[in-house]
Amino acid sequence: MAKDMTLWWGSGSPPCWRVMIALEEKNLQGYNQKLLSFEKGEHKSKEVMDVNPRGQLPAFKCGDKIINESYGACFFLECEYKSQGTKLIPENSSEKALVLQRTFEGNTLHQKMVDVFMYNRRVPENERHESAFKRLKETLTGEVQMWEGYLQKTPGGFLAGKNFSMADVIVYPSVALLFRMGLSDKRYPKLSEYHKNLKDRPSIKATWPPLWKDTPGQDFLKDI
Amino acid sequence: MAKDMTLWWGSGSPPCWRVMIALEEKNLQGYNQKLLSFEKGEHKSKEVMDVNPRGQLPAFKCGDKIINESYGACFFLECEYKSQGTKLIPENSSEKALVLQRTFEGNTLHQKMVDVFMYNRRVPENERHESAFKRLKETLTGEVQMWEGYLQKTPGGFLAGKNFSMADVIVYPSVALLFRMGLSDKRYPKLSEYHKNLKDRPSIKATWPPLWKDTPGQDFLKDI
Repeated sequence: MAKDMTLWWGSGSPPCWRVMIALEEKNLQGYNQKLLSFEKGEHKSKEVMDVNPRGQLPAFKCGDKIINESYGACFFLECEYKSQGTKLIPENSSEKALVLQRTFEGNTLHQKMVDVFMYNRRVPENERHESAFKRLKETLTGEVQMWEGYLQKTPGGFLAGKNFSMADVIVYPSVALLFRMGLSDKRYPKLSEYHKNLKDRPSIKATWPPLWKDTPGQDFLKDI
Repeated sequence: MAKDMTLWWGSGSPPCWRVMIALEEKNLQGYNQKLLSFEKGEHKSKEVMDVNPRGQLPAFKCGDKIINESYGACFFLECEYKSQGTKLIPENSSEKALVLQRTFEGNTLHQKMVDVFMYNRRVPENERHESAFKRLKETLTGEVQMWEGYLQKTPGGFLAGKNFSMADVIVYPSVALLFRMGLSDKRYPKLSEYHKNLKDRPSIKATWPPLWKDTPGQDFLKDI
């Protein structure tokens, strides 16, 4: 089944990583994959643009079907392979509600993180303000504190309780990137524990960003 | 069933409106609802914060389950009432893939729209730059052109083809808000047709923002 799937991806990109984790969890190993370089602008190549006119990664084909949005791809895989591999969206209504709530809150965490990372890259120098950058960091701090609180209040080791779920597929890559960028283990002990505990989960280990294995992390977020 | 549901909402907010359309489409009329005023800051009231600690609308309770994220609430309703009312996510794989792709691209359209609307409100005066605002409007223009192109290429009258789907639940409120803010019918004829054709759909008519009925639209986006 996985043989007719193709994923174009970039190392360390949370949206790409989500799809890779979902594929592993649904036992869809053996798909075709092309690792591209953001630095070289390969995500703007004709090959990618033909699949994803936004020129973004991931680009994902499943037979003749195209689902480039990472949330869409993960939900598609869960729907199509419901009874295969890990059940990512539980049947039980209460569990399902919490999984969906955390899954979609994950988009806010990701966005606030990207806003900080990309400020210097996306905002032209003459429009940059120290006060604006500080505010973005404070907003991210509040958001990360919220997730630390969720883990304090939700026992079980995963974002939505005792089972690995879609919420972890979607949010773990962002959490891992936060720590890669210097998030403090001391100030966020529950997130740190979550980060470390899931590192050895087969789906995550198999898809760990290759770039991260060979290069040191940064301390960009050490003070948030 | 709907009697044990409560929605706290604000008039004209696309995320709130999405949930209301989904409730109508799933034949879940008769839920409890509280219309709150953003202007009066009622979304930051204790009543809302107790349900949604982010102090945002919608806030949504379904029995003792809380799903405040609009995407989460819509997916939850579709999962829980799969065979009731309109089927929002089709069984057919190809149709499903397109519905999910457009549904999640809707988040990008919404975000780019909000970035333009909120620039003057969110960015302190001393940090504002005409060039930045112009760039946000250009980005939104490119995004809206993309959706105009989708409607040109996808016959059937809905965002993902011949049937009303989750993509319409999620994206229609943003399209309606764009036109409310002055989007040109002439420059975006397919979007305009889509906007007008769906106005009379019962789920949309029943949930049309009350504020919009009594007040004129604006011309804020007339030049994009």
